[in-house]
Amino acid sequence: MDRNIQVSRLDRRAVEDQEVEIVERKGIGHPDSICDGIAESVSRALSQLYLDRVGKVLHYNTDETQLVAGRAAPAYGGGEVVEPLYVLIVGRATKEYEGEQLPVDSTALAAARDYLSEAIPELEYGTDVIVDVKLGEGSGDLQDVFGEDTQQVPMANDTSFGVGHAPLTETEAIVHEAEHELNTTYHSDHPELGPDVKIMGKREGDRIDITVAAAMVDRYVDDLDDYDDAVADVREFVTELAEARTDREVHVDVNTADDYDEGSVYLTVTGTSAEQGDDGSVGRGNRANGLITPNRPMSMEATSGKNPVNHIGKIYNLLSTRIAESVTDEVDGIRDLQVRLLSQIGRPIDEPHVADAQLVTEEGLDIADIEDEVVAIVDEELANVTDVTRSVIDGDVSTF
Amino acid sequence: MDRNIQVSRLDRRAVEDQEVEIVERKGIGHPDSICDGIAESVSRALSQLYLDRVGKVLHYNTDETQLVAGRAAPAYGGGEVVEPLYVLIVGRATKEYEGEQLPVDSTALAAARDYLSEAIPELEYGTDVIVDVKLGEGSGDLQDVFGEDTQQVPMANDTSFGVGHAPLTETEAIVHEAEHELNTTYHSDHPELGPDVKIMGKREGDRIDITVAAAMVDRYVDDLDDYDDAVADVREFVTELAEARTDREVHVDVNTADDYDEGSVYLTVTGTSAEQGDDGSVGRGNRANGLITPNRPMSMEATSGKNPVNHIGKIYNLLSTRIAESVTDEVDGIRDLQVRLLSQIGRPIDEPHVADAQLVTEEGLDIADIEDEVVAIVDEELANVTDVTRSVIDGDVSTF
Amino acid sequence: MDRNIQVSRLDRRAVEDQEVEIVERKGIGHPDSICDGIAESVSRALSQLYLDRVGKVLHYNTDETQLVAGRAAPAYGGGEVVEPLYVLIVGRATKEYEGEQLPVDSTALAAARDYLSEAIPELEYGTDVIVDVKLGEGSGDLQDVFGEDTQQVPMANDTSFGVGHAPLTETEAIVHEAEHELNTTYHSDHPELGPDVKIMGKREGDRIDITVAAAMVDRYVDDLDDYDDAVADVREFVTELAEARTDREVHVDVNTADDYDEGSVYLTVTGTSAEQGDDGSVGRGNRANGLITPNRPMSMEATSGKNPVNHIGKIYNLLSTRIAESVTDEVDGIRDLQVRLLSQIGRPIDEPHVADAQLVTEEGLDIADIEDEVVAIVDEELANVTDVTRSVIDGDVSTF
Amino acid sequence: MDRNIQVSRLDRRAVEDQEVEIVERKGIGHPDSICDGIAESVSRALSQLYLDRVGKVLHYNTDETQLVAGRAAPAYGGGEVVEPLYVLIVGRATKEYEGEQLPVDSTALAAARDYLSEAIPELEYGTDVIVDVKLGEGSGDLQDVFGEDTQQVPMANDTSFGVGHAPLTETEAIVHEAEHELNTTYHSDHPELGPDVKIMGKREGDRIDITVAAAMVDRYVDDLDDYDDAVADVREFVTELAEARTDREVHVDVNTADDYDEGSVYLTVTGTSAEQGDDGSVGRGNRANGLITPNRPMSMEATSGKNPVNHIGKIYNLLSTRIAESVTDEVDGIRDLQVRLLSQIGRPIDEPHVADAQLVTEEGLDIADIEDEVVAIVDEELANVTDVTRSVIDGDVSTF
Repeated sequence: MDRNIQVSRLDRRAVEDQEVEIVERKGIGHPDSICDGIAESVSRALSQLYLDRVGKVLHYNTDETQLVAGRAAPAYGGGEVVEPLYVLIVGRATKEYEGEQLPVDSTALAAARDYLSEAIPELEYGTDVIVDVKLGEGSGDLQDVFGEDTQQVPMANDTSFGVGHAPLTETEAIVHEAEHELNTTYHSDHPELGPDVKIMGKREGDRIDITVAAAMVDRYVDDLDDYDDAVADVREFVTELAEARTDREVHVDVNTADDYDEGSVYLTVTGTSAEQGDDGSVGRGNRANGLITPNRPMSMEATSGKNPVNHIGKIYNLLSTRIAESVTDEVDGIRDLQVRLLSQIGRPIDEPHVADAQLVTEEGLDIADIEDEVVAIVDEELANVTDVTRSVIDGDVSTF
Repeated sequence: MDRNIQVSRLDRRAVEDQEVEIVERKGIGHPDSICDGIAESVSRALSQLYLDRVGKVLHYNTDETQLVAGRAAPAYGGGEVVEPLYVLIVGRATKEYEGEQLPVDSTALAAARDYLSEAIPELEYGTDVIVDVKLGEGSGDLQDVFGEDTQQVPMANDTSFGVGHAPLTETEAIVHEAEHELNTTYHSDHPELGPDVKIMGKREGDRIDITVAAAMVDRYVDDLDDYDDAVADVREFVTELAEARTDREVHVDVNTADDYDEGSVYLTVTGTSAEQGDDGSVGRGNRANGLITPNRPMSMEATSGKNPVNHIGKIYNLLSTRIAESVTDEVDGIRDLQVRLLSQIGRPIDEPHVADAQLVTEEGLDIADIEDEVVAIVDEELANVTDVTRSVIDGDVSTF
Repeated sequence: MDRNIQVSRLDRRAVEDQEVEIVERKGIGHPDSICDGIAESVSRALSQLYLDRVGKVLHYNTDETQLVAGRAAPAYGGGEVVEPLYVLIVGRATKEYEGEQLPVDSTALAAARDYLSEAIPELEYGTDVIVDVKLGEGSGDLQDVFGEDTQQVPMANDTSFGVGHAPLTETEAIVHEAEHELNTTYHSDHPELGPDVKIMGKREGDRIDITVAAAMVDRYVDDLDDYDDAVADVREFVTELAEARTDREVHVDVNTADDYDEGSVYLTVTGTSAEQGDDGSVGRGNRANGLITPNRPMSMEATSGKNPVNHIGKIYNLLSTRIAESVTDEVDGIRDLQVRLLSQIGRPIDEPHVADAQLVTEEGLDIADIEDEVVAIVDEELANVTDVTRSVIDGDVSTF
Repeated sequence: MDRNIQVSRLDRRAVEDQEVEIVERKGIGHPDSICDGIAESVSRALSQLYLDRVGKVLHYNTDETQLVAGRAAPAYGGGEVVEPLYVLIVGRATKEYEGEQLPVDSTALAAARDYLSEAIPELEYGTDVIVDVKLGEGSGDLQDVFGEDTQQVPMANDTSFGVGHAPLTETEAIVHEAEHELNTTYHSDHPELGPDVKIMGKREGDRIDITVAAAMVDRYVDDLDDYDDAVADVREFVTELAEARTDREVHVDVNTADDYDEGSVYLTVTGTSAEQGDDGSVGRGNRANGLITPNRPMSMEATSGKNPVNHIGKIYNLLSTRIAESVTDEVDGIRDLQVRLLSQIGRPIDEPHVADAQLVTEEGLDIADIEDEVVAIVDEELANVTDVTRSVIDGDVSTF
């Protein structure tokens, strides 16, 4: 098989070298991310249900969770949710297969419950948040491409497009890691930090401004002084993390909208702004690589919740990112790489219409010197396209 | 104060002496009873919330829970719910008091969750059943008649009517106790019996037919033989219970709609027919005394979920039953007693327009002989009308 | 065929002769009646849909409509609905037959829309009221007993009970007719009168008190004087209507809860209290004969919305009323007649376990003199049981 | 005032000159566009409501409409919707102002109804589609910046980013105009064409492939031949339109997924795939300029439904596009212009942190020659930022 793989010079400077760069990441507790997380958990649970029950993944699509915000009355030492959040899981799923009823709704609800208890532990399922579900019957044309035994490569039935990049710029890396570390290592020592951490990075030349909006959880905060300490701790942690990753000048601001005189601070009961009027839905936040990067081409496709067996948009977005990472991991001298995959209707998805690797090399490195190597890696990753499906089902890859 | 209490002869035979008598009780797991139970639990929880937070019960009414049935796939040894039940808690409640937000929705949901886990333990909250809530703002006119310190008697603002009876006939007693014993003592030894036990008693002359519809829980039933044993055990238990309470001829049938040849039996996953297409709502099942008794006047009023402080219909239905029981407990020789309370608009509810005790005495006993005693008891119970409110809030009295 | 028809003396006085009588009717605009009306309209529409599409009525049951009240801001000359009402149509229906999809949800919604626009014309569908629907799949066992060509009599598969009475007492007749006339002839001249007319009749001896709660529609009322006139007009109309039907003393009160000093009057935008916090559901209001009559045995069965082909409770409630009316129409000298029908499991429903006609005759008339005539009428009506189904489907009989 | 306006060379080729270009537009009948359209209509209606009632726009945000797809049974000559669509309008709104209740829910529903009847005329409101609404109370901090008399420039309270481009490339222009013309001039002569027209343009070098997915409305299509004609007509129309706008080679495909042998064609009852399992939500489709353009930086911000007075993301996305269009309208020689606006927290939004105009000029034109002109136009547009708000409220600008 001869795949159409093209390698060329990216017709712009590396993002790292552009004058102004903007990067954003909505943390796992942000209302949009909550929806992404639920949608993807539901998707994984349905894939697993189908594999367990009928040995192959049937038709479904659950990329439309909608969150309606609630209201809370936070208070130092512990407040309460006053009006529950409402989450509507929306999509299609196959509910019957060869006469057997499949519990798709219950499975979806259990997945949402388990995900929420992990991601937003202060939010009590069923009382602080109502989760409802509307999964219509799928079209009935079953997808048996991905079974226990056989893992066929599906056909493209739509013109779809995926785009990925590597390596991350310094600003991107800082924004991504800061959120991740805050929500893992930092949080384990600082329970007062809620999961709704939104980070905006703005670089102008060699100055990086990091703005963090971090929801504090009231029952771990005694008073305004305590709150002020919590904010300062976050600022210090993020500053250190950033300075370890760049030689540029770094400034970190946390919860800039606070007004201590008015007593107006970012204090929450559950650690998410969804308790305070911020609605959310799938595909409105982070792209498949976990970031929002207006300096780069982005796909509008909502990756979370889509069927990982046959949804080309999902597969191509994840795969193009994976390819970009593999290439930059293995090939030295690439400052910026952009991989685009465009589907070809009626062909297996491992044979895209075009796989397009555009790159900026370091001073002195010619594209011709690395072209073969790049093509080989792209080719191999395309050949292993079903690995993407497998790793999505296994939960080994994040979609937001 | 001079209450208008009238004692007279009931212008019919005692129900015990009528030729045909029909009695029904929907067990606590019946869809209508589930709604009654949730509505009343929500009501109690709101009363308690208001007492805890503001020292008095504010305006609310939660007598409209609607249950939409689900679907299940029962199987010997354990099946599963395929399509979750949906419960909508409906009513009015005061959500703000003197600037404080009151978590009425969360409180209602927690009450429903706790009630369901107790009443229908096999039904997993949040996955087998979705509970949603629509509590509108109440009218805003606060009710401060029932506080921690003061317990005023509220005014009647409507023409309302309550009716109660005592003593129970043999058939009534058998139906009521059979359901109660099955769902308590029997169930503790027989986990295969689900809470949805519906009992119909029909007496013609001196023959009593008891028909039991009992949902069996599949994970405690191995096969059809086991099921058949379970049915036989219920039949035996109810027969013994009935024969201990009457000298009449007793026949007991259990799950008469079963068709063993077709494999069509009353097997469920959760122990309620709500998993199998039976919807439910408040006020459609048992009356306030726990029975449906077409031989007797009944109030259409839904008692469950109503505000126990100021809803006259609720109070009068419970109070008239309590009065009837007190009178027949303390006064000998009454074969049948019917107590009716009719409100008088603009007067405290302990001064009804009329409190009407109609009775059938035993051979040889003249009403005149007991009239004073009856009047005294009725008078005292009316004077203690706020005890009804207190016992409802404390959960000491059943409303269905 | 030998039906088990029994005629006997009713072991009480005629209700007309009892000392105290209470009668109530919730008008078509009352929240509970709105639900009854929608449920029954949906039922009729589904019967018709099935007849049109497959030539017979398939399995369905739609007796569980729930109404969640809204909020309005009425104002003389015309206010507005501030928070829409929410109506949830609940039940079961067959959605597919021999491979053909049947539009049951759309049909149910269209039926609700059409009914509402007729019954509550001031309520704008889709903006003042949101109508939602949750119709689960029926059990799949199709009911082909009532088709275009064949009209088999269905089998009883449950112990079910129906009860009917005739003739109406004076108080009953006044209450029933007053609501009906107010909502038809009176309304056509008085658009200010909304459909939510609730009438309570209380007779003590020879005095009848009629209490009317009548929602006025604000855009036809200019000011408080105008409102006061509207109330006076209703009072006069009902008084005249009542006095034409009885020689007893009649007192009529209208909107007694009004407080003119406080400006608190029963003014509405849409003519129903459902815009002002009064929720509603099916089966909570009028019985099948249009009245609530605590002096008489009543069935708890919700008649509205049930499948008229195979739901015995619905059929027996309507049929027992029809029988009672036929008998009293054709046989002179009956002061009070109570007809009870009790089903016999496993037998066609025209062969009840017992059909029981109990009566009070006028002075001097012996039951033996009319027994044969009564039996013959009951027998004929039972034989024509499928006429009940037909007239329900055709909308010729009211269920609430 | 000195605004920070920067003009520089765009560090890439004009998109028109890039090798591969991808452009997409989801037509107004696409499920995502339906949500955008409803959200924006609701927004406009609320702005107008607030202006009418209190003279200024109060706090609201309605950018979260969720559409749950239905099911239909299309048929030549006219089929029917079998399972209605469900639309949930989600957001925040101020429901009370100085004691006056504001009918925000009814207003939102009426806006959705009116929009749908215009955009998807074959879809019957209230039966083919259920529209529900969950608008939480806003935060209560009123926004009085945009009133009848005063039109203050609001402060930026968030780091927000907008991006716009001009002129459109040939491919962009063709995609955008084709959808627009199909849904207006073409549709008026061809009622069989439904509003769900999705157009994908792919240019490789000098060849443009246009792929159209066009939902046909069944009641205007008699049979497969007729359908085939309808498809051919669309192909011809789009081909002519495209060829009139480019000298490049054009290929147009319409409904490529059709399989005539299987009888599987894109036939619908209502003209939208939302009747066939395609869910939708706001912000998932077209960007603010009506296109999805992966070759260009795009904002993730959902523009539709946001409050046009104080939502910087909405304003900056619309304004940056308007600026780009003004500049390219007035200044000759610009091949590609990208305008970025970045807010500055705590400053009026007409004083952005940076307004950044990057451009590619035609051969021989130096940026220095036009810089002053460009700056002047940008400055003037920024000064008139409230015009954007006004034109959004008036419905003069599209957001999707």
